[in-house]
Amino acid sequence: MVIVMRQGCRPEDIARVEARLKSLGLSVFLSNGRAKTVAGALWDTKSGDIRDFEVLPGVIEVIRITEPFKLASRSFHPEKTVIRVKDAVIGGPEVALMAGPCTVESEAQTIEAAEKVAAAGAKVLRGGAFKPRSSPYSFQGLGEEGLRILGKASKRTGLAVISEVMDVGQIPMMMQYVDIFQVGARNMQNFSLLRELGRTRKPVLLKRGLSATIEEWLMSAEYIMAGGNHEVMLCERGIRTFETYTRNTLDISCIPVVHKLSHLPVIVDPSHAIGIRAKVPPLALAAVAAGADGLLIEVHPDPDNALCDGAQSLFPEQFADLAARLRIIAPAIGRTL
Amino acid sequence: MVIVMRQGCRPEDIARVEARLKSLGLSVFLSNGRAKTVAGALWDTKSGDIRDFEVLPGVIEVIRITEPFKLASRSFHPEKTVIRVKDAVIGGPEVALMAGPCTVESEAQTIEAAEKVAAAGAKVLRGGAFKPRSSPYSFQGLGEEGLRILGKASKRTGLAVISEVMDVGQIPMMMQYVDIFQVGARNMQNFSLLRELGRTRKPVLLKRGLSATIEEWLMSAEYIMAGGNHEVMLCERGIRTFETYTRNTLDISCIPVVHKLSHLPVIVDPSHAIGIRAKVPPLALAAVAAGADGLLIEVHPDPDNALCDGAQSLFPEQFADLAARLRIIAPAIGRTL
Amino acid sequence: MVIVMRQGCRPEDIARVEARLKSLGLSVFLSNGRAKTVAGALWDTKSGDIRDFEVLPGVIEVIRITEPFKLASRSFHPEKTVIRVKDAVIGGPEVALMAGPCTVESEAQTIEAAEKVAAAGAKVLRGGAFKPRSSPYSFQGLGEEGLRILGKASKRTGLAVISEVMDVGQIPMMMQYVDIFQVGARNMQNFSLLRELGRTRKPVLLKRGLSATIEEWLMSAEYIMAGGNHEVMLCERGIRTFETYTRNTLDISCIPVVHKLSHLPVIVDPSHAIGIRAKVPPLALAAVAAGADGLLIEVHPDPDNALCDGAQSLFPEQFADLAARLRIIAPAIGRTL
Amino acid sequence: MVIVMRQGCRPEDIARVEARLKSLGLSVFLSNGRAKTVAGALWDTKSGDIRDFEVLPGVIEVIRITEPFKLASRSFHPEKTVIRVKDAVIGGPEVALMAGPCTVESEAQTIEAAEKVAAAGAKVLRGGAFKPRSSPYSFQGLGEEGLRILGKASKRTGLAVISEVMDVGQIPMMMQYVDIFQVGARNMQNFSLLRELGRTRKPVLLKRGLSATIEEWLMSAEYIMAGGNHEVMLCERGIRTFETYTRNTLDISCIPVVHKLSHLPVIVDPSHAIGIRAKVPPLALAAVAAGADGLLIEVHPDPDNALCDGAQSLFPEQFADLAARLRIIAPAIGRTL
Repeated sequence: MVIVMRQGCRPEDIARVEARLKSLGLSVFLSNGRAKTVAGALWDTKSGDIRDFEVLPGVIEVIRITEPFKLASRSFHPEKTVIRVKDAVIGGPEVALMAGPCTVESEAQTIEAAEKVAAAGAKVLRGGAFKPRSSPYSFQGLGEEGLRILGKASKRTGLAVISEVMDVGQIPMMMQYVDIFQVGARNMQNFSLLRELGRTRKPVLLKRGLSATIEEWLMSAEYIMAGGNHEVMLCERGIRTFETYTRNTLDISCIPVVHKLSHLPVIVDPSHAIGIRAKVPPLALAAVAAGADGLLIEVHPDPDNALCDGAQSLFPEQFADLAARLRIIAPAIGRTL
Repeated sequence: MVIVMRQGCRPEDIARVEARLKSLGLSVFLSNGRAKTVAGALWDTKSGDIRDFEVLPGVIEVIRITEPFKLASRSFHPEKTVIRVKDAVIGGPEVALMAGPCTVESEAQTIEAAEKVAAAGAKVLRGGAFKPRSSPYSFQGLGEEGLRILGKASKRTGLAVISEVMDVGQIPMMMQYVDIFQVGARNMQNFSLLRELGRTRKPVLLKRGLSATIEEWLMSAEYIMAGGNHEVMLCERGIRTFETYTRNTLDISCIPVVHKLSHLPVIVDPSHAIGIRAKVPPLALAAVAAGADGLLIEVHPDPDNALCDGAQSLFPEQFADLAARLRIIAPAIGRTL
Repeated sequence: MVIVMRQGCRPEDIARVEARLKSLGLSVFLSNGRAKTVAGALWDTKSGDIRDFEVLPGVIEVIRITEPFKLASRSFHPEKTVIRVKDAVIGGPEVALMAGPCTVESEAQTIEAAEKVAAAGAKVLRGGAFKPRSSPYSFQGLGEEGLRILGKASKRTGLAVISEVMDVGQIPMMMQYVDIFQVGARNMQNFSLLRELGRTRKPVLLKRGLSATIEEWLMSAEYIMAGGNHEVMLCERGIRTFETYTRNTLDISCIPVVHKLSHLPVIVDPSHAIGIRAKVPPLALAAVAAGADGLLIEVHPDPDNALCDGAQSLFPEQFADLAARLRIIAPAIGRTL
Repeated sequence: MVIVMRQGCRPEDIARVEARLKSLGLSVFLSNGRAKTVAGALWDTKSGDIRDFEVLPGVIEVIRITEPFKLASRSFHPEKTVIRVKDAVIGGPEVALMAGPCTVESEAQTIEAAEKVAAAGAKVLRGGAFKPRSSPYSFQGLGEEGLRILGKASKRTGLAVISEVMDVGQIPMMMQYVDIFQVGARNMQNFSLLRELGRTRKPVLLKRGLSATIEEWLMSAEYIMAGGNHEVMLCERGIRTFETYTRNTLDISCIPVVHKLSHLPVIVDPSHAIGIRAKVPPLALAAVAAGADGLLIEVHPDPDNALCDGAQSLFPEQFADLAARLRIIAPAIGRTL
């Protein structure tokens, strides 16, 4: 933390700041410039709120200089985290494909989707059983029945299963069906849920909130990791911007940025980012070219009759074609698929 | 819903759109312009996803023309909702003052705050017992002990109590201590929590998410109301913008906008919006001048030693001075205080 | 500037940073913490790009600690700037009202508007002669003829005239007609125009760009002031946010923030911020309650037939009613009107 | 345009809307639903402001259903525009590389940069002679001397030259030195400049404003095209978002979106988007994978001593390595390089 004092502030103002820093157990350095005095200390992640210094007399500005996350930080864990679930290896040289329908609608639909995405190279099957819908009048998912269907499809194809958890109360029941818990964008700061997932020992895919900064996203990962569960994947799914021609704006630059700040794998969900089928493949190709560790893509055997998000679901053939193009791109960045 | 078809699209494209509208039970109107054909139907709040039409051949654009909320809408409920809790009347001609410390720290601190805000004209006591902190390493609140203290302070002063609920599991316990449930900005789209609060019969103050649109905010109110609990207040607490000199940006214009769209009362929280004590009063005055039905303000008997958000808490005398100025302003807009 | 070095970085990395700081003529301070080393220097407004340090080996983060503006800064000019134009005094205890039509359409329309706003208490007449329209096919203003009409209206009523300048080439001609140059939001960073206005000796009202930060806005004021023209007013006219129910979002908090950072007066334009007539008065009242030094409001004698922005123009009676309410509010914040 | 009327609005309200539509020469269609009446008309790009209808009695909402741009629209010009400048072909199957230093500093620096980027496959040389700097105290460029140097470098290497124009007054002089005019992000809505460039017959590269929507960007292209100059390239250079770890956020999805809406080529500038050298290549690869027609990249022979933006400039070897990787990726999307 660096505290900038007003030019010509009184000695007692500086003394007060110094005393407060010391009362927090921080070692203090002081520097007297021509124009301003700067006091500073190395801040600890547990030390509280920098604004407590901003209101002290003589202080102009207070700047935090250390990252507030630790377990998620690359400084403290230089090697990349690799997560293994069934046949999927996430965070290694291979790009991991996760695919399947937005929502589990029926056994037939889910098994057909699972077989087709597995044939094209996917290692993880996605499918929603609990759906966070912005309207209370929309279809809310099949619930546990949906999870049972995912389990069957997994047994048949060998795919690992990822599905969204919305609530602390759903965790114990879901433990028996899913291989990866998904936390949705709207729950990225549902701290009760994060804390409880930190007590499980299943990998968690944490979607970035619609207007969360990268730091807030990593702080939410820190919540899970602080409970002892270190297998967290970060999933970029588009952020909110002023653009109205797209559903959201895929933040492609977060991939190299997160890779520098953190050792956790980064997955990209182009389907929710763009919201329209025809533009999913260009974004998926771009994500892998930019270094994503995996993709989460909606694929439906019959998108025109999907109960949810059909407009953004790929036909199985489109997904197979995309996988073929990805195999051309991967070597350009030293990856395989 | 209005569906715009490409110039020169084929008759079968139009027929397909028409059939799909009818299959949803919607009555259809068609219009053939020189350049484009427009098909339309009056959309129902339960009818699903407009993007299902966007992917049909010949369609350029689909536009929703009805609001997706109903119980929260002024069209269906023209008179303003008035909520009564103890001595507070929220949504009537009187501006309701809610005040108190960010966090309940001790009995002495809470009772002192309660007595002072009551003396200055507040009718509701705020105080956090469960704190949603972005870092897992920050103080998380006193929990039930904090609620017990609020209960005591309420008995002593007659003030109603508002406190934040973070989790479905906390609701039954909190029922005995609080008069108004507060839902925090980060939980605005925690649909499990909203649904459960809809089953209670206590007023709910719903904070707007950091980058939620007004429509999304009203949809979250709709979630609560759909369960039968119609006593919802909407609380603006600042939205995220590019500005870094302020913590958040208070969206003052949401006050007249929500009053036009909805019958629910609008409360403004200037403390969280601006984050620095000295700028709370100008924003509080502005909010009332713009028509707010109430204010939620952090007041602490000793802000310099507050455990949380001291930098944005008013001293009790500042709060009393603010109330005096509000009494000058209120008549300019036909309100009392 | 504070430069944070990686834990365990090499002594030569620190030496390199130190040398570079010294080569810029900056005096350096160094601090060795347990975890990290921090080097720093007091940055000068002319010293360049902090990213030049970010790419040096061993550096984690570089933070600027001094404001990049100087002439516009309150630190260097503690008393508030007061600008006098004809009968208007802007920045003093009186709230200055500027009003008139969006666009000058005819002599009759402009003179009627001028007389009515003067009667209600306005001291400055606004009116566009050159219009920045987002479509090349929209009406672009009457040009010099419009300015001549404003001049006549000014002579008749004694009001000062403010009108928008879009181009360096228009300045000499406009000098004879206007009392205040207005720079539009889209030209806030048209540096050629700002530099040239800095060479004139007429007050400039500088609108904030649609998504400009306060710092960028003050830097644009600095451009004008660096040329020797110190009579700059800052005009908040709404910023772009995700909200679609309003045209823009009035950033009310910028008023106390700018008043703390700068000595320049702050004017608020609620008409462009909200875009719909009925919501202009609540925002105008709020702006004055929050401390604005003046208001810029669109008033048209016949808004329903205005050539431009009729939907947001007040009827003259509405403006008079607003002025009456403002007179109730002003004393609450120690102002007059 | 579709106009939604309030349920139970009066027949005279509908008649008024109808009359106003007809007065604009628009043919009207009406539809009476159970709940609401909808009136509509096909809007013309010249027809004005939809808010004029929003203020009429009985109207709830007005929605524009036609794009406001025409010359830039793919509906009116289905084949993609291909622009040829010297050896560069922009908009065809080949991906066009434009590269060079941020700022022209000296003849030696510019010629060295030009030779190295040409050797790696670039066809266009970039270099700033007039620099739009947010501080009036920063280096503002060499001016005409810089253009002369670019001309020499072009003669030596055969590269076409692109350089930024900031002002109408600079156009005649620049005509003799540059092959492509660049309009910077801050001038995207400098309508005087756009209009004047429309009167030249040189290609224009139009950068997207920091928070411009795609529609506004295309409207600015329309301004240039309305003057008869149809050779416009659109350049995405990052938009402003809440993220602070990156300078701007590259909007990769604008590539497929613009390609659907318009026939104009899309160029991506990853250097300004991300602002830090090490992250330029991942974004450049992503842009081409997503379908960009070209790249604009900063390359400097000695970035550590660059006068401007050294931190984001590639070393020449990095640029050559990037070009080699792009050659692997191009076939995956049916392009060459």
